[in-house]
Amino acid sequence: MQSSGNSSGKCRVLLDAMGGDFAPLNEIKGAISAESDDKNLEVWLAGDKSKIISVMKENNLSFDISRIVDASQVVTMSDPPVQAYKEKQDSSLAVGLRFVKNGNADAFVSAGNTGAVMTFSVLIFRKIKGVDRPTIGTLMPCVGGYCTIFDAGASVDSKAHHLAEYAVLGSIYAEEMLNIKNPRVGVLSVGEEESKGNEVSKKAREMIKTLGLNFLGNVEGKDILKGNVDVTVCDGFTGNIVLKFAEGVNYLLKHLIKEYADESIFKKIKVGLFKSSLKAIFSKLNYENYGGVPLLGVDGITIIGHGSSSPLAIKNMVLKAAEAHRKELLQKLAGAIASRNIDHNEGNPE
Amino acid sequence: MQSSGNSSGKCRVLLDAMGGDFAPLNEIKGAISAESDDKNLEVWLAGDKSKIISVMKENNLSFDISRIVDASQVVTMSDPPVQAYKEKQDSSLAVGLRFVKNGNADAFVSAGNTGAVMTFSVLIFRKIKGVDRPTIGTLMPCVGGYCTIFDAGASVDSKAHHLAEYAVLGSIYAEEMLNIKNPRVGVLSVGEEESKGNEVSKKAREMIKTLGLNFLGNVEGKDILKGNVDVTVCDGFTGNIVLKFAEGVNYLLKHLIKEYADESIFKKIKVGLFKSSLKAIFSKLNYENYGGVPLLGVDGITIIGHGSSSPLAIKNMVLKAAEAHRKELLQKLAGAIASRNIDHNEGNPE
Repeated sequence: MQSSGNSSGKCRVLLDAMGGDFAPLNEIKGAISAESDDKNLEVWLAGDKSKIISVMKENNLSFDISRIVDASQVVTMSDPPVQAYKEKQDSSLAVGLRFVKNGNADAFVSAGNTGAVMTFSVLIFRKIKGVDRPTIGTLMPCVGGYCTIFDAGASVDSKAHHLAEYAVLGSIYAEEMLNIKNPRVGVLSVGEEESKGNEVSKKAREMIKTLGLNFLGNVEGKDILKGNVDVTVCDGFTGNIVLKFAEGVNYLLKHLIKEYADESIFKKIKVGLFKSSLKAIFSKLNYENYGGVPLLGVDGITIIGHGSSSPLAIKNMVLKAAEAHRKELLQKLAGAIASRNIDHNEGNPE
Repeated sequence: MQSSGNSSGKCRVLLDAMGGDFAPLNEIKGAISAESDDKNLEVWLAGDKSKIISVMKENNLSFDISRIVDASQVVTMSDPPVQAYKEKQDSSLAVGLRFVKNGNADAFVSAGNTGAVMTFSVLIFRKIKGVDRPTIGTLMPCVGGYCTIFDAGASVDSKAHHLAEYAVLGSIYAEEMLNIKNPRVGVLSVGEEESKGNEVSKKAREMIKTLGLNFLGNVEGKDILKGNVDVTVCDGFTGNIVLKFAEGVNYLLKHLIKEYADESIFKKIKVGLFKSSLKAIFSKLNYENYGGVPLLGVDGITIIGHGSSSPLAIKNMVLKAAEAHRKELLQKLAGAIASRNIDHNEGNPE
């Protein structure tokens, strides 16, 4: 676990300035905006120092350049993660994570290549003791608020004991970061009955039963949106498909509204009059507004954002990372894992 | 394959009158309504004859009682399918399917226990030659129209060669029943790149490549709703979760609209004025309106409906079954499978 001591007393978040599609501009803007919102926050940028300074000048932005950690390389969205790790040790991603690992900052944030952020985080931060497979969560709007899904794509071949880990990690995350008391945990399956599910989900249910969580057993796809579960656990293949399907909902809604408006001039006017209401109603479905998802199970705080993150999204990611540090999320996750005995062999002899 | 000869020259659909949650009332109403829409259609009902007649009388409904095939038992929604097959050979489900199998009707429709309808259909109709695993499809609204997902829950442990079968069967279904010329087939995965996916999806992609379909390779969850694919193939665990998640979207939208309206009297009035438009815009998302999904790969036409099917949904199911018969869907599916060599051993020695 990283040291949290620093002389300024402020929470220090290291932001990968070269990560997102609009880097470093959105990153600089997000950093400035986060510091303006939270006076006890200090943002550090990792990236090409001369590039960052020139973008600052071009856009008339003011940021303390002594808090830019120079890095000569950039991991691109199309870089294969493991290869990038071998070849790009001076990337903003690697430099930034090591900066946190060495205790110079408290948390790490990137809107870069998700697979690479995950791989680099695991290799540099290492895993929390007792965790076999770190997990990326996603936040999902639902009736009554928001819920989470773990895993949303860190692994495509999760095993039952990984789902058990997701249940513990996700439960702590929901409690600490979403302020959900005693979060309800469910295993995503094809029916509520115990007999329903595939091999992994059925075995996971048996394992999670014993972990002392607020466990509902199986939940179905519809339970996620109906607000019937706070922490949905599933393999990362299924979770990623559900997440991306959900991202498509907003797109389809916009299309259906446009299709309706195009039917007649009268309908177009009606939609025009109701436009601001539609926007307000559906704003909750815009996944790009959420500003980052956690990578849990590594021994450091990593928040990962969408490549297309806006300055607002970047700001929210930075604030979330700071919140995670202040709430000692990492220590709580480690404690929750340490106090449980999740059998990595799933009952099979070693 | 069933004989399609009959003396009246009409297309004959056998409807399980005891299947749905509102059986037999909705079934009787749906049957009457289907016959009224299509004069070349003859609906037969399987079920408890005296019960059906008494419900007809109570509701002042007129249906030719010589077309009721008596069956003393009912398969309930909670009956385990295999056990029900052993113990309920005189159920409306078994009697109805045998009636079709014996050539007395051309297609079978039920809004009953989905698992039981599938199990009974496989055991009574048997499988199309060359098919290892029949599949239930689902229809999904998307930008530009509708698309399909196979499998939507017939199997929880689909293997790669099953997905290859789904691709062939689904492609024919989309072409014949949804009038999509040269339908685009995709394997549901976590990224477009060839390297993305789990073991089953990656192997399936390699197999489907060779089948001479209009094959896109991998598609992601968002591609379904964006209208980027006509036939999405995936294991039934994933497909069922996506289907049920999609069912939850409508529920969440209603909630978001209500939440907005409850914010102020002004907003409530606005929503009230726009109510009929909202209903029109989102009607496409109401999965209960679709009226049934196909079970493909069995040697007979089976259309399965939602337990809560309305008379309109029942009517649509019956009409869809008749359409499938008239379009010789079964012969086309069998031909498409026979003309391809899908390796049930997936390259492994037997």
